[in-house]
Amino acid sequence: MGTKGELKAVGKRTARFNGPDIVTGRATYADDIQLTGMLYGRILRSPHGHARIRKIDKRKALALPGVVDVVTAQDVPDMAIFAKDEVCHQGQKVAAVAAVDPNIAEDAVALIRVDYEILPALTEPLAAMDPGAPEAVLGAPIKNVKDPKGRKYRNVTAYDVIEEGDIEKGFAQADAVVEQEYHIPFFHQTYMEPNASTAKMGADGRVTVWTAGQGTFGVRTALANAINLPEGRIRVIMTETGGSFGGKNGLVVEAQAAVLAMRTGKPVKVTISREEDFQDTRPGPGCWVRLKTGARKDGTLIAVEGRIVWDGGYTGSGGSANRLLGPYKIPNVRLEGMAVRTNKPGPGAYRAPGAPQTAVARESNLDMLAHALGIDPLDIRIKNGVRKGDRPTMQHDWLKDTLLLTAQTARWGKKRLKKNQGMGIAVGDWQNASGPTNAFVTMAGDGSVAVVTGQVDITGLHTVMGQIVAEELGVPVEKVTVTLGDTDTVPNASLSAGSKAAYSAGTAAREAAREARDRLLMLAAEKLEASPSDLVLTNQQVQVIGSPGHSIALGELAEAAVSSEEGAISGRWILSKIPTYPSFSVNIATVEVDPETGHVYLLDLVAGQDVGKALNPMLVEGQIQGGATQSIGFGLMEGFRYDEKGRMLNPNLLDYAIPTALDVPEIRTVVVEDGCEHGPYGAKGVGEPPIIPGGAAVANAIFDAVGARVTQLPMTPEQVVSALANKPS
Amino acid sequence: MGTKGELKAVGKRTARFNGPDIVTGRATYADDIQLTGMLYGRILRSPHGHARIRKIDKRKALALPGVVDVVTAQDVPDMAIFAKDEVCHQGQKVAAVAAVDPNIAEDAVALIRVDYEILPALTEPLAAMDPGAPEAVLGAPIKNVKDPKGRKYRNVTAYDVIEEGDIEKGFAQADAVVEQEYHIPFFHQTYMEPNASTAKMGADGRVTVWTAGQGTFGVRTALANAINLPEGRIRVIMTETGGSFGGKNGLVVEAQAAVLAMRTGKPVKVTISREEDFQDTRPGPGCWVRLKTGARKDGTLIAVEGRIVWDGGYTGSGGSANRLLGPYKIPNVRLEGMAVRTNKPGPGAYRAPGAPQTAVARESNLDMLAHALGIDPLDIRIKNGVRKGDRPTMQHDWLKDTLLLTAQTARWGKKRLKKNQGMGIAVGDWQNASGPTNAFVTMAGDGSVAVVTGQVDITGLHTVMGQIVAEELGVPVEKVTVTLGDTDTVPNASLSAGSKAAYSAGTAAREAAREARDRLLMLAAEKLEASPSDLVLTNQQVQVIGSPGHSIALGELAEAAVSSEEGAISGRWILSKIPTYPSFSVNIATVEVDPETGHVYLLDLVAGQDVGKALNPMLVEGQIQGGATQSIGFGLMEGFRYDEKGRMLNPNLLDYAIPTALDVPEIRTVVVEDGCEHGPYGAKGVGEPPIIPGGAAVANAIFDAVGARVTQLPMTPEQVVSALANKPS
Repeated sequence: MGTKGELKAVGKRTARFNGPDIVTGRATYADDIQLTGMLYGRILRSPHGHARIRKIDKRKALALPGVVDVVTAQDVPDMAIFAKDEVCHQGQKVAAVAAVDPNIAEDAVALIRVDYEILPALTEPLAAMDPGAPEAVLGAPIKNVKDPKGRKYRNVTAYDVIEEGDIEKGFAQADAVVEQEYHIPFFHQTYMEPNASTAKMGADGRVTVWTAGQGTFGVRTALANAINLPEGRIRVIMTETGGSFGGKNGLVVEAQAAVLAMRTGKPVKVTISREEDFQDTRPGPGCWVRLKTGARKDGTLIAVEGRIVWDGGYTGSGGSANRLLGPYKIPNVRLEGMAVRTNKPGPGAYRAPGAPQTAVARESNLDMLAHALGIDPLDIRIKNGVRKGDRPTMQHDWLKDTLLLTAQTARWGKKRLKKNQGMGIAVGDWQNASGPTNAFVTMAGDGSVAVVTGQVDITGLHTVMGQIVAEELGVPVEKVTVTLGDTDTVPNASLSAGSKAAYSAGTAAREAAREARDRLLMLAAEKLEASPSDLVLTNQQVQVIGSPGHSIALGELAEAAVSSEEGAISGRWILSKIPTYPSFSVNIATVEVDPETGHVYLLDLVAGQDVGKALNPMLVEGQIQGGATQSIGFGLMEGFRYDEKGRMLNPNLLDYAIPTALDVPEIRTVVVEDGCEHGPYGAKGVGEPPIIPGGAAVANAIFDAVGARVTQLPMTPEQVVSALANKPS
Repeated sequence: MGTKGELKAVGKRTARFNGPDIVTGRATYADDIQLTGMLYGRILRSPHGHARIRKIDKRKALALPGVVDVVTAQDVPDMAIFAKDEVCHQGQKVAAVAAVDPNIAEDAVALIRVDYEILPALTEPLAAMDPGAPEAVLGAPIKNVKDPKGRKYRNVTAYDVIEEGDIEKGFAQADAVVEQEYHIPFFHQTYMEPNASTAKMGADGRVTVWTAGQGTFGVRTALANAINLPEGRIRVIMTETGGSFGGKNGLVVEAQAAVLAMRTGKPVKVTISREEDFQDTRPGPGCWVRLKTGARKDGTLIAVEGRIVWDGGYTGSGGSANRLLGPYKIPNVRLEGMAVRTNKPGPGAYRAPGAPQTAVARESNLDMLAHALGIDPLDIRIKNGVRKGDRPTMQHDWLKDTLLLTAQTARWGKKRLKKNQGMGIAVGDWQNASGPTNAFVTMAGDGSVAVVTGQVDITGLHTVMGQIVAEELGVPVEKVTVTLGDTDTVPNASLSAGSKAAYSAGTAAREAAREARDRLLMLAAEKLEASPSDLVLTNQQVQVIGSPGHSIALGELAEAAVSSEEGAISGRWILSKIPTYPSFSVNIATVEVDPETGHVYLLDLVAGQDVGKALNPMLVEGQIQGGATQSIGFGLMEGFRYDEKGRMLNPNLLDYAIPTALDVPEIRTVVVEDGCEHGPYGAKGVGEPPIIPGGAAVANAIFDAVGARVTQLPMTPEQVVSALANKPS
């Protein structure tokens, strides 16, 4: 669904609208909000992985001059925003303080006395599900799932099985079978901006909250539930968000800020530290996977069987096995998915949730099969991957084309490698979501265009919407502004998540612009005494086709429209849902392994992705490079570490390593453009696929380099050395 | 154009939505804006009424630690935002300073050395137009208007004559002729909130300004012209406005804040004092009037002749005579209108601009005629006032009805008065403006409704829009919020001025709500399997008519709509213009005059107004009482006083007296409701008419009390004593 002729704004490498403000420090982040008479809030948190709360004494804290309020679960008995009788992970919120100064608030936090009875803490999912394990959350309901000996597992919160075909028969037909276990720890979104929220209560009891995140309406709903107010009594205004990657999808300290504001009658800003951010947000979940995969001699996959146990943290979330299948056609399947409660924060979404973890298991197994059968790892993927027509939504050979083009760029099979060097390939599959969303377009007398949307911009969305509106209205993109509405000013828009923002809000922007364009053409037709069908909108003018001198400037039309019958030029589009399509990412990593130290040097990474249409190639490349970098961090460096009491050992950026410029080569991108039907100008969502295959590609490259299979993440030197020691010789 | 059946929200005494925040100090006013890294701006102003600037030395100011910038006209040669070679009134801006602290900024202002050559200052319009007068603004163009001796007037900037019929013949037919001169000084809107503006420049050069006022788009246009940026490069966000009354219709310190922000790259807030506000904003203009009015024996007005000379300040604005005619039918007219430049601030709009001043002359003359002819002052007004059908827009006997009902409430002619007590009546006429404006309506899952409009709320507009939306959607008004959009988020909306806000934006709100209602009904029809025409929207539900159990909650519909084909419930209305109608205000004042001291005690004031329909009677009464109070201040207390060098003698609220609670009796309101055709639910604009007749009514009451005609405002004890001394015995 393109436009006639050549695109003038869409498809261009337009710099992010908010880029200059971000890099010059002018952007307003959540912690930049300053309100008259504002108090500062700080949180008291559990120092223990698991404990009973016997007593909380806040008298000393309250007595500290400058302290305005100290709130605990007892003060808000109808809200579940503080631990009450039990803390179930280190960092869990126990109390909040509001004071006239942040230092006083911190001092007051230290003055709150909590009497704990320490309980055993569980941090490993397999240990937590052991029939003899203690409870991670006292008295919490569990699923009735039994171990092979018939004993009931403990702390299991979810259990499901995917079954297709006949798994016994499948493996019986296999010429090669591989089976492996994988261990993956929690890993964090590690956005640059730690969380902060500011709340203000109106005299009418309505609460306004400024916070960062991926969706104003999602925060409003969550906050309404948390503090027991109807949604209409809450206004959420989202600031610039300094990274989220799924991590700021829900509440962090919004409810605590709101409650302090409601109790004190003053605006309150709650800011948390990086340590608090590690300990009490929603990291990507870890998991244990056992995966068995069988193939025929020619590489055709025939059976897959296994179990994934998700570390559900204290909320016991997760449990799905379905991502273990990937983009491959496998006739016989039996996959168990489980989630287990542990004494860790409740995990949440991290960019393509569940996909990087499952890709490590799936793509490693596939690599092992290829090696076992003597088939090229690229070929086995092409052979088994979904093809055009395999599903109604597979409109092109997106996976195969992406595999081939990425392999070509990486010179797969042709590159001359030195000793201890190796190449690995892996595939990620995804399908972006869509809507609900909206866009509103207005034109001013200078021909500038103001766009408003409820869709939060986390990765350049507003720039892309600006390009689309510029395209449709024939104005330079510099004349378009895009503003984020809040819950009081725009209709419900969903989270900017699921790779759907540009896909959906881009469509809304296009349609809203077209409505405005139609108004401009109608008005121009009157002024130029021509039929609208004889008019063309180009170069900030409406021209009579074939008579370029016979024209009128858009700004002039917009100015005239204000006092015309139908009023100012505007366009509106409210979108609920449009069809979506699968999309694929392929990473090919080249590594060199130092067999003595176990250090893995990433020499090269080629990241291919099928994007439909790159609405802004620079932003698409940035997404691909950013996601691949996170994937490398996930694969080689990152992971929460805990002591036996459930205390995180590395809740800071010194001990929790993430990739720096020195760790990552220039990631070469391969952007495959073969448009899908309903995406704007053929585009698909691009946000999540890039993070999926990198870790798996590195694991396969390490194997290619030194013949050792690393199955425990992150693939630190210790793990590599250990794998080398254990490799069958 | 009402709705079927009884109104449930419209016409009710709903408290102002922003009232609680205002009275508890929680509202965010312009000076409450706080931005990270913000600097504080202060203005250096002319201490002289008129002077040449020989030299400005800002070195000492710049050298003061903490000073970031000092800007003068020389630094911004393409902008007319500072005096360059000449200051033409005291308080005119000469330089602006930005510093890290407001005290440092003030110290720096004091360190700027300006070398002035003092010139003669003109503060009286008659003196300023004298053929021998100096120039108020050196070299400024003037109109070629001559005095009776054929000498060219000086400093005259506007001259126009209204002529109808034959004035000579008219007066020849008159049985009584009165002629009088009136003097009226500048008077100030005296809003509670002095001006402040904050500006921030984005890294892309776009400028955002937070300021108070009556219209975001008006500020944007004015600012774009002042600082030479296209409108699309400016965003104006309006804060709560603490009174304006026309005074904040244009720029005050927005341009200075913007320029400091652009030069320093930091946010800058400029705040001014009450003194600066008096000396350099746009007060209501003073004037000199000579008015001659003739009537037949029966009171029929037959001729009016005269001249009004407006004191145009240094901008020489104004000049119209047309308001001297008023709502009366007079066949023979000759009225000269002039404006004269003086060395005072340029006057601007003050609630019903020009009307209170001209009413004093017109209504005093009418009173004198009534007394001369022995006719009741009420009767002479009824006799000569416009009646139903006299003009196409006179749909009812609005003036006569308002006169009669006000007189009845005041017990005109029936009240027993003591010695030195008197009653006076006066009439004001007006016609509200309309549009452009807009309204956007959205409903959330809890059935709450969010309204957005570009129309600034200065007097309860948003509350009235909320009532209208509640009415149309069948929800309690407490579930409606109304939010002001800014120049980046809504289409162009005009100033909330000309009594048009509720008239126009109320209509937009009604139509937008109806669009949303239609969507709700369509969706409900699907869900309830009924025809939309069989449905009624009531009590937060859509019901099948006659089957109240067969219903669905609005919130549920709104929730379902988000993922329905057409998406979230919304309604939009963009309005350019609708027809408007005349409206009238009548004041009857009862005073007691102390003939020894000249003090006038206002014993009673009955304020009647024809409002069409009171959308919110409490707010309408508040408007009437507030306007009448200002009118009393104008009549009895207020006025700029100057020394011979053009320096204001009373630029503070101690010396510039405005009415306090002790000065004003409970003003009794008479709300006349006789709907006009196109107003929302029959309403007319109500903001401006209340200020018109009060001063004139008091003048007439003084005459009734002690037989002395005060013609120089304000009618202070000195003026009353002087009038008593001069009264013909």
